[in-house]
Amino acid sequence: VNKVYDAVSFGELMLRLSPPGKQRISHGDLLEKNAGGAELNVAAGISALGLKTAVISKLPKNDIVAFVTEKVKACGVDSSYIIADDKKEARLGVYYYESGATPRTPKVLYDRAGSSVNSITINEINSDIYSCTKLFHTSGITLALGGNVRETAIEMMKLFKVGGAKISFDVNYRASLWSEDEARNTIKQILPLVDVLFVSEETSRRMFQKTGELRDILKSYCEEYGISVVAATKREIISPSSHNFGSTIYESETDTFYSEKPYEGIEVVDRIGSGDAYVAGMLFGLLKFGDVQKSLEFGNAMSAVQNTVNGDLPITSYSEIENVIAAHKSTGLQSEMNR
Amino acid sequence: VNKVYDAVSFGELMLRLSPPGKQRISHGDLLEKNAGGAELNVAAGISALGLKTAVISKLPKNDIVAFVTEKVKACGVDSSYIIADDKKEARLGVYYYESGATPRTPKVLYDRAGSSVNSITINEINSDIYSCTKLFHTSGITLALGGNVRETAIEMMKLFKVGGAKISFDVNYRASLWSEDEARNTIKQILPLVDVLFVSEETSRRMFQKTGELRDILKSYCEEYGISVVAATKREIISPSSHNFGSTIYESETDTFYSEKPYEGIEVVDRIGSGDAYVAGMLFGLLKFGDVQKSLEFGNAMSAVQNTVNGDLPITSYSEIENVIAAHKSTGLQSEMNR
Amino acid sequence: VNKVYDAVSFGELMLRLSPPGKQRISHGDLLEKNAGGAELNVAAGISALGLKTAVISKLPKNDIVAFVTEKVKACGVDSSYIIADDKKEARLGVYYYESGATPRTPKVLYDRAGSSVNSITINEINSDIYSCTKLFHTSGITLALGGNVRETAIEMMKLFKVGGAKISFDVNYRASLWSEDEARNTIKQILPLVDVLFVSEETSRRMFQKTGELRDILKSYCEEYGISVVAATKREIISPSSHNFGSTIYESETDTFYSEKPYEGIEVVDRIGSGDAYVAGMLFGLLKFGDVQKSLEFGNAMSAVQNTVNGDLPITSYSEIENVIAAHKSTGLQSEMNR
Amino acid sequence: VNKVYDAVSFGELMLRLSPPGKQRISHGDLLEKNAGGAELNVAAGISALGLKTAVISKLPKNDIVAFVTEKVKACGVDSSYIIADDKKEARLGVYYYESGATPRTPKVLYDRAGSSVNSITINEINSDIYSCTKLFHTSGITLALGGNVRETAIEMMKLFKVGGAKISFDVNYRASLWSEDEARNTIKQILPLVDVLFVSEETSRRMFQKTGELRDILKSYCEEYGISVVAATKREIISPSSHNFGSTIYESETDTFYSEKPYEGIEVVDRIGSGDAYVAGMLFGLLKFGDVQKSLEFGNAMSAVQNTVNGDLPITSYSEIENVIAAHKSTGLQSEMNR
Amino acid sequence: VNKVYDAVSFGELMLRLSPPGKQRISHGDLLEKNAGGAELNVAAGISALGLKTAVISKLPKNDIVAFVTEKVKACGVDSSYIIADDKKEARLGVYYYESGATPRTPKVLYDRAGSSVNSITINEINSDIYSCTKLFHTSGITLALGGNVRETAIEMMKLFKVGGAKISFDVNYRASLWSEDEARNTIKQILPLVDVLFVSEETSRRMFQKTGELRDILKSYCEEYGISVVAATKREIISPSSHNFGSTIYESETDTFYSEKPYEGIEVVDRIGSGDAYVAGMLFGLLKFGDVQKSLEFGNAMSAVQNTVNGDLPITSYSEIENVIAAHKSTGLQSEMNR
Amino acid sequence: VNKVYDAVSFGELMLRLSPPGKQRISHGDLLEKNAGGAELNVAAGISALGLKTAVISKLPKNDIVAFVTEKVKACGVDSSYIIADDKKEARLGVYYYESGATPRTPKVLYDRAGSSVNSITINEINSDIYSCTKLFHTSGITLALGGNVRETAIEMMKLFKVGGAKISFDVNYRASLWSEDEARNTIKQILPLVDVLFVSEETSRRMFQKTGELRDILKSYCEEYGISVVAATKREIISPSSHNFGSTIYESETDTFYSEKPYEGIEVVDRIGSGDAYVAGMLFGLLKFGDVQKSLEFGNAMSAVQNTVNGDLPITSYSEIENVIAAHKSTGLQSEMNR
Repeated sequence: VNKVYDAVSFGELMLRLSPPGKQRISHGDLLEKNAGGAELNVAAGISALGLKTAVISKLPKNDIVAFVTEKVKACGVDSSYIIADDKKEARLGVYYYESGATPRTPKVLYDRAGSSVNSITINEINSDIYSCTKLFHTSGITLALGGNVRETAIEMMKLFKVGGAKISFDVNYRASLWSEDEARNTIKQILPLVDVLFVSEETSRRMFQKTGELRDILKSYCEEYGISVVAATKREIISPSSHNFGSTIYESETDTFYSEKPYEGIEVVDRIGSGDAYVAGMLFGLLKFGDVQKSLEFGNAMSAVQNTVNGDLPITSYSEIENVIAAHKSTGLQSEMNR
Repeated sequence: VNKVYDAVSFGELMLRLSPPGKQRISHGDLLEKNAGGAELNVAAGISALGLKTAVISKLPKNDIVAFVTEKVKACGVDSSYIIADDKKEARLGVYYYESGATPRTPKVLYDRAGSSVNSITINEINSDIYSCTKLFHTSGITLALGGNVRETAIEMMKLFKVGGAKISFDVNYRASLWSEDEARNTIKQILPLVDVLFVSEETSRRMFQKTGELRDILKSYCEEYGISVVAATKREIISPSSHNFGSTIYESETDTFYSEKPYEGIEVVDRIGSGDAYVAGMLFGLLKFGDVQKSLEFGNAMSAVQNTVNGDLPITSYSEIENVIAAHKSTGLQSEMNR
Repeated sequence: VNKVYDAVSFGELMLRLSPPGKQRISHGDLLEKNAGGAELNVAAGISALGLKTAVISKLPKNDIVAFVTEKVKACGVDSSYIIADDKKEARLGVYYYESGATPRTPKVLYDRAGSSVNSITINEINSDIYSCTKLFHTSGITLALGGNVRETAIEMMKLFKVGGAKISFDVNYRASLWSEDEARNTIKQILPLVDVLFVSEETSRRMFQKTGELRDILKSYCEEYGISVVAATKREIISPSSHNFGSTIYESETDTFYSEKPYEGIEVVDRIGSGDAYVAGMLFGLLKFGDVQKSLEFGNAMSAVQNTVNGDLPITSYSEIENVIAAHKSTGLQSEMNR
Repeated sequence: VNKVYDAVSFGELMLRLSPPGKQRISHGDLLEKNAGGAELNVAAGISALGLKTAVISKLPKNDIVAFVTEKVKACGVDSSYIIADDKKEARLGVYYYESGATPRTPKVLYDRAGSSVNSITINEINSDIYSCTKLFHTSGITLALGGNVRETAIEMMKLFKVGGAKISFDVNYRASLWSEDEARNTIKQILPLVDVLFVSEETSRRMFQKTGELRDILKSYCEEYGISVVAATKREIISPSSHNFGSTIYESETDTFYSEKPYEGIEVVDRIGSGDAYVAGMLFGLLKFGDVQKSLEFGNAMSAVQNTVNGDLPITSYSEIENVIAAHKSTGLQSEMNR
Repeated sequence: VNKVYDAVSFGELMLRLSPPGKQRISHGDLLEKNAGGAELNVAAGISALGLKTAVISKLPKNDIVAFVTEKVKACGVDSSYIIADDKKEARLGVYYYESGATPRTPKVLYDRAGSSVNSITINEINSDIYSCTKLFHTSGITLALGGNVRETAIEMMKLFKVGGAKISFDVNYRASLWSEDEARNTIKQILPLVDVLFVSEETSRRMFQKTGELRDILKSYCEEYGISVVAATKREIISPSSHNFGSTIYESETDTFYSEKPYEGIEVVDRIGSGDAYVAGMLFGLLKFGDVQKSLEFGNAMSAVQNTVNGDLPITSYSEIENVIAAHKSTGLQSEMNR
Repeated sequence: VNKVYDAVSFGELMLRLSPPGKQRISHGDLLEKNAGGAELNVAAGISALGLKTAVISKLPKNDIVAFVTEKVKACGVDSSYIIADDKKEARLGVYYYESGATPRTPKVLYDRAGSSVNSITINEINSDIYSCTKLFHTSGITLALGGNVRETAIEMMKLFKVGGAKISFDVNYRASLWSEDEARNTIKQILPLVDVLFVSEETSRRMFQKTGELRDILKSYCEEYGISVVAATKREIISPSSHNFGSTIYESETDTFYSEKPYEGIEVVDRIGSGDAYVAGMLFGLLKFGDVQKSLEFGNAMSAVQNTVNGDLPITSYSEIENVIAAHKSTGLQSEMNR
């Protein structure tokens, strides 16, 4: 079968509003506007590296949504599977983001109650997509929205699976969205559908109540649910503007663990979306090269670079990520002559 | 009784987001943030001219609301009667405003469904305020919100009336908020409570189904409902950036009509809030001078000036309005020597 | 045959750099960056109204070109037929634009010598496109570039014609690019290929040396070259910030002239691209409705609206243009109640 | 007696003009405008944490002063005790501030000669305030202005003392304003009036010519002048953008020294006003809780946070400072799940 | 004798601070910074057209003055005759400018009391300049400053006259600076030194108490004081953003009046400095061509163009002014082909 | 002979375009415009410290060049030796600069092919300059441009040498401009003309193929080519925003090596131009004091400060650099009292 899309994702698309620089939500005259959403970020990251993607969601029809849709297109993500919500009270989810400066921490303020995606149903989605896609991705944020969204997401995972797509899932547990119990019970149901799983060590221990070494934890997901690949990222927050970032991946088929030295001293301009960029880089590696080590390197590099750019959406290219990976592997100083 | 407040208003407070200059909601990187709301604008205008005001409303507790509250305080409006909404899903109403340029018209995009004010009840309000206020103001926009808001507004009008305050009401009919029938039926119920009424000729004819000369229409409100003063503004839109503005007022006690030559060629920077500025100027005149002609002059001048400043909230002062009125009355050229 | 693209255009894509507002190229700290190019503008306009388009061009591979390409995608124009120029000295054409203010006139400063498009050849273009396109558009600016570009453009017109596409051509004569003689001689050669021609009265008289009434002139193009539809726009410049705009179209098949009352008092924010927006609106009308009067109305409305937005690229939608057309036809005042 | 104000301060209010970001006073097109003044900053900080404050000063009547006054009101500080200077040559003090970047240091350029506050007299002040205030604060900067200002400040300290207020004084010695001898002689006169004293170790040693351990020095102020509480802050400047900050407080009644581990690696956005924020936080603690350890914690947290925001005036809230204190006390990593 | 400078002027140099666009002094976060001063503007305008100029003044030594001095150099005006004021309390005059929008008028707020120029004396000035200059210019604003400035200005006029320079004087009467009586008495003393006089009709009638026709008034200055050329500009203010501008000049030697049709519908971006630009253009014409009609045309065109640019200082060139003059004289429409 | 200029430099002047802050060339709406060019930067730095300089180059005549020329004048560099290129296709070289954030590196994108300077010939230059100049400076970037530019530069070095000027040359090897072989062969030819040489250790080893200790390498240039003074800078890049910087100088006459402790933790706002600032500071020291140690200190301080300001062109003063040198030498903490 001919696969038109390398990857398709499903989730909520939101308007992000941020005060410039180190300014605060409660002050100043301006907000920077951006589009965001964990699953859109993943599709956009895969697209930035050169593969073909689409995003499934549901949005009102108005001018501020036109802004979001144009960003989707600018990222090279196909927007034709986004369902239009014609209801009068249809609304776009919004979130406000304020960057931190030690000792004040970054702040996220959500205003997403009643947004259009909450009324989505599986019947609204053009079913052509299930059979022409190589990989489907969604996340725990989508399941946390509950109701129609959760139901539709689970149904979609099944239909994509039947259509021949690999299923990717990022646990992305947020305590502000649902309880650990509800998350654990819900996600456990869908894990048997999953081929590629993203879950952090902290979430594994606290929300999934796993114990033991990290490596044992990762392996246990494969053993319990038949998952092929499990990736765990690790971010060390030195300050709001300086992070370290690395990851570990376990592949069940070869029973192998993969890693590389972490990126250190990342100069964080805007951390939002850097976790999604990891997912994008890693899935790109799997789709393009089928090589787990290379996937890990693309994931780490994508995440490191995404921390240095403003906004959720990736601003990078295959050649840039290649260069970053090469520089990360080299040990010598960069030459001042190469300018 | 000692009246602490010259004027108190009740209505929804919102966040206003606008692209800079002639930019569009659907494009660009920035939005200007401002606070707005018809009744807040009125209180702020009266306060800018030197009287003491407060606003009653209900708002969530978060950083973007802190922005709005600070604007209220900066305008000199007492914010201590704003009720805090502690519910998790509490939200602040938002609206996006795009200025026009012939032939494209200005656009307003509301995102106010489910905002905190909709859960307000009369019991939440500190009842001290009813007896220490000279004038209470609200508008048809507030009644159009329906449910709790409408019920609370009507109850408030009665309590302020009992407390000895004059009642001011701006019909401000918006076809996008409610039908003509619902508006007419609702407003007719509260008109017997009203002392000062603001209603345009167009609204009188279409929504209230009045006929005849404008003067007869204005007079009819006083005759039918016992209203003391009725004011009708008239805006001529030459282009989104050039308006004419004037008004006519009828006072029943003296059976007199008041007017002056309209302001012509107003250079419109941002028209939002200029109708509320008229109400503010006019009410200020009544409260301060008890002189209808002077009230009309303050109303017209406030409205004309408000068209020339960015944002809903008035940016002016008593001395500036005095100068604008004097210049409007003078016929000669302004001297180039007076710089 | 299944036509994938409603319209495809060919021309140079450029970076546009403009000082903000009324600032000057020679002063200030900032330049606004935008993408532009007459033929891109046309494709983008048709796409904004809802049809499927692509643009053919040749560009270097670097970060500033990535900016331009992303704008192409954001406009919904397919960028996959843009050829990459890998040569070391490959460059992107740039132009600086400064808006005017009476009595100083707008200024355009070109820096396009040696840009990548000048090395394009017909062999570089994927020939699939010729048979899957309903309409091909290019302009006199492209022919004026001479050399490879002119040769390739003419060859393309022939190949699209053979492939079954209609050929659209906008004379768009610029005295700064080539002489009247060279333009006349070159364009006369390609007119027999053209189905839809855009040419102004002034250019017809001076460059094409036509005489007589405008209507006779338009008709003469059809008689001499077998053209189906000829459109002539007319702009009256009252000041750099106020224009009137209208057009006349002649259709040979029905021997009919079409027109409507011009748009008056257009508030010009940025005139660049408004001529291309006319072409886009008019071609959209022909492609969508096959109705010349409707095409003229879409052309005029698109052009009028494009004058009110910053940048060359259209920022509008089908529904906005529909509203502008309806308002232009109505004679009454807009209601203040409809907010 | 009923105390209307928790705290009242007296000092000069100024306009602050700063180039954006790391730009320089001598270049660029823009200046950011802000209000500032050590004593205003203190009142505003106490108000931001939830207590009632006012500021006493003297200002001209003009539009740039209106900007300053609105900032006072926006901060929740009562502006009704600011005296209007109607003289023609009345002027507002201005200062230019440029942030540094290693190795260039931050720069302050004062233009405050002849500002209105210099003509203030004790008779201009509404004497109601002396008896309705819990705490009065002023600083060495105010005394350094000399003449009327010094005389009025000292008189005010006495009148507030008589009225039942505690007296707070921040030595805040600036070598650019007066000599060490003049400062020492002047301040020694008023120390017997002081209940709460802020003085740094460096100033104690150099200007006050104290010797011995820091703890002995702090204690000596209490023994010599009958002061109740003495606080000494300590800032370590790692670079213009990274500071450490902590403090030590001595309470004479209990003969106890208080401290906590310093804040390290504060990301400094704008250090101006962070010393005043310490004073505000510490006085808030005393007024609200009467607990010196808690006062020290609020002082340190307020100062640390104020370094991270632009401008002199505090942008924070009680809940934010509570969170910062809690995070400072906790030792574990912050969870990535709590977003 | 070899004349190094075509023109030298003397006056106060100031910092100009303006809110962007239509914003107000009392609101917003930003001020645009510019240098200004009537006599600097004149020197800069003459320099922009290609002649050599210098300005004499006195300024403090600090970073904000460095900004002003750099602007002087950027305009091509020699800054080496600006005297440095080393006194501690030395200050730079500042003015705030807010543009208007009908019906609110533009506002100027001066903060120039005690600025360095007020301490200037004739002895501080390098006397080399008197003999190497073709024309010296100053204005009534300088005389209005009184004290040292007035005395020095008058002394300078005499020394330049002795050195062989023509003396140019712009009355530029401002009622806010001095009374009509003081102005008349002072200026009458220096008129016998003047060769080229700029004075408006309104000032002639009110301040100089002249009567009769404008032409008679202009002629009377030459007859009474031996002045060679008198120029009177006339500005019609249609609105703050639309002016008409023209002038009349009388030359005594040929007993001739000069004029041309006024510029109409000038789109005013910032009117400040446009009167000085007239003086610059007119003096340039005299210096360069010795032709009064041409001088008038350069004066009018310079003034018209200066209204369209932000800031006091001219941003134009000889070639632009030539083009504006040519377009003003031509009667036809501008061709749309010449782009 | 009377030397009018302390230093004259020759090279290309370019327009620099940079996205603000950490934004990327490929995104965002704005570019900051600046003038740049290695040799201009050197002349501007020497001028900022108080000596008289000029720059020789060739530029088109248009508005964007007017921007560049005005920056030259604002820096106090004489622009009268810049030759105007009247050819139609004349163009100004442009470069785009994007700052980095670990792990993405800064990016430079050149668009300088065919710029006007490439057509310069020795005959176009006013030969007066050769005899009135104390020091002539150019760099390897200029030689790398090849053709006319290289030929003219070499000829100029000879003519200045004959005219009595010292010759300064900064090797500034860029691998992107020419090969190591071509650079080595070309530069070796001109080294016998050079009095003051700037060359890094890395370039000496790789491009010049020198071996041994740094000190031996520096000495070898003097021995082989008769050079008087050789300076080698050393930059350690900790991250794009934190550098260390120091230098070593060898003087042949006294056979002495000079150095000081490096500047550490420089907060890099914009590194471009900081190498040129070193050259400027060092040459200033030689010209002003003839003292190599002082020259090294000025060079290091100028470079350190230049890293902290935006743009290529120096924004500093003699007094600031003096203070930075003094602070660098002092070991104690800066007093908090000196504000």
